Amino acid sequence: MQKAENFSFYKDLKEEDRRLVRENLREYTFHRGAQVYNGDCTGLLYVESGRLRVYTLSETGREITLYRIAEGGVCLFSASCALRGIDFHVFAVAETEVRLILIPAEIYKKLSEKSVAVNGFTNALMAQRFSEVMWVLDEVLNKKFDARLAALLLEEEAYAGTADLKITHEQLAAHLGTVREAVSRMLKYFESEGLVELSRGTIRIANAEELR
Amino acid sequence: MQKAENFSFYKDLKEEDRRLVRENLREYTFHRGAQVYNGDCTGLLYVESGRLRVYTLSETGREITLYRIAEGGVCLFSASCALRGIDFHVFAVAETEVRLILIPAEIYKKLSEKSVAVNGFTNALMAQRFSEVMWVLDEVLNKKFDARLAALLLEEEAYAGTADLKITHEQLAAHLGTVREAVSRMLKYFESEGLVELSRGTIRIANAEELR
Repeated sequence: MQKAENFSFYKDLKEEDRRLVRENLREYTFHRGAQVYNGDCTGLLYVESGRLRVYTLSETGREITLYRIAEGGVCLFSASCALRGIDFHVFAVAETEVRLILIPAEIYKKLSEKSVAVNGFTNALMAQRFSEVMWVLDEVLNKKFDARLAALLLEEEAYAGTADLKITHEQLAAHLGTVREAVSRMLKYFESEGLVELSRGTIRIANAEELR
Repeated sequence: MQKAENFSFYKDLKEEDRRLVRENLREYTFHRGAQVYNGDCTGLLYVESGRLRVYTLSETGREITLYRIAEGGVCLFSASCALRGIDFHVFAVAETEVRLILIPAEIYKKLSEKSVAVNGFTNALMAQRFSEVMWVLDEVLNKKFDARLAALLLEEEAYAGTADLKITHEQLAAHLGTVREAVSRMLKYFESEGLVELSRGTIRIANAEELR
């Protein structure tokens, strides 16, 4: 399979537009922890392997995770300059080593101006991201902090495939849009309840049943 | 001007699609306070006069205002079934008497399937709404409650064109995604600081400078 076929609209393009995509396709690899984009406008990114975390920054510099993009997913806001009406910035960081395929923003914009398929793709993807952010908003507004932290620990366990989580309190705080102190306090409380065991650099989930 | 021309993509449609729009256009009037839509899928709404408030409901039944749509604006999520990928519900209520022009959802969907202009319009509008919701998320996460309430009072003053606001504590709470008690407590505090004067059914802004 050609790399370009990873973009689902590719098959619906005319041959001249397919060629435009193929000739401008780029590939990148980012190491774990690398900043993949900083609110800039590189283009449409397809995640060939690995996982991106997309987040926003508050005025005070706090991060909050909006959604993650795993293998097979597409990052839309890295092409924000090709989208009319977007006036916010999101950022993405590589949570694992990631391999990406890029359609540059100017090419994507050209396609958007003439292809119903590309526009339909943009619409559906934006709607999906919008839905995810609405979920975050609901969670932030309504869920209690202990439930949010417990859910995050279980999610991390599922991703990592182990109960020994190599994640810092700082990182958890960034996911939840709060400060490290709040996370440390709640983790201490969880420890006192026998739900987790804390040691330097590791959080072990001791009682997943009760965390649920 | 024809009513259909209020939709900016109309001029870019082929004549057969223009006719489709014209023949299916409907008009509605809602009184102040009426529920305009309840997460259902009526179609694309153009606000000819008046103002809509679009909000979401939390699990616990609390409202939070996402954005408002004034004269000349278009309500997109009232056509959510015509959009792929949307899995949340928003609701709209008439804040004043409103007159609306509707393109039914099935007609809008048909247009979306063949017109680049309609898709571009959908993209731009969704991006704008997304930006507004990101702003709400940021505000909820970061701004202190007193600053949020003060900003809302000043906004209401600007809309109403008077310092005497006929708005209940309940309504203010719904705007801010909180409970009436929290609003009443903060208003009492504002009153003690000489910023507002409270009387039955009215909140008078006494010192707009200090509220800022």
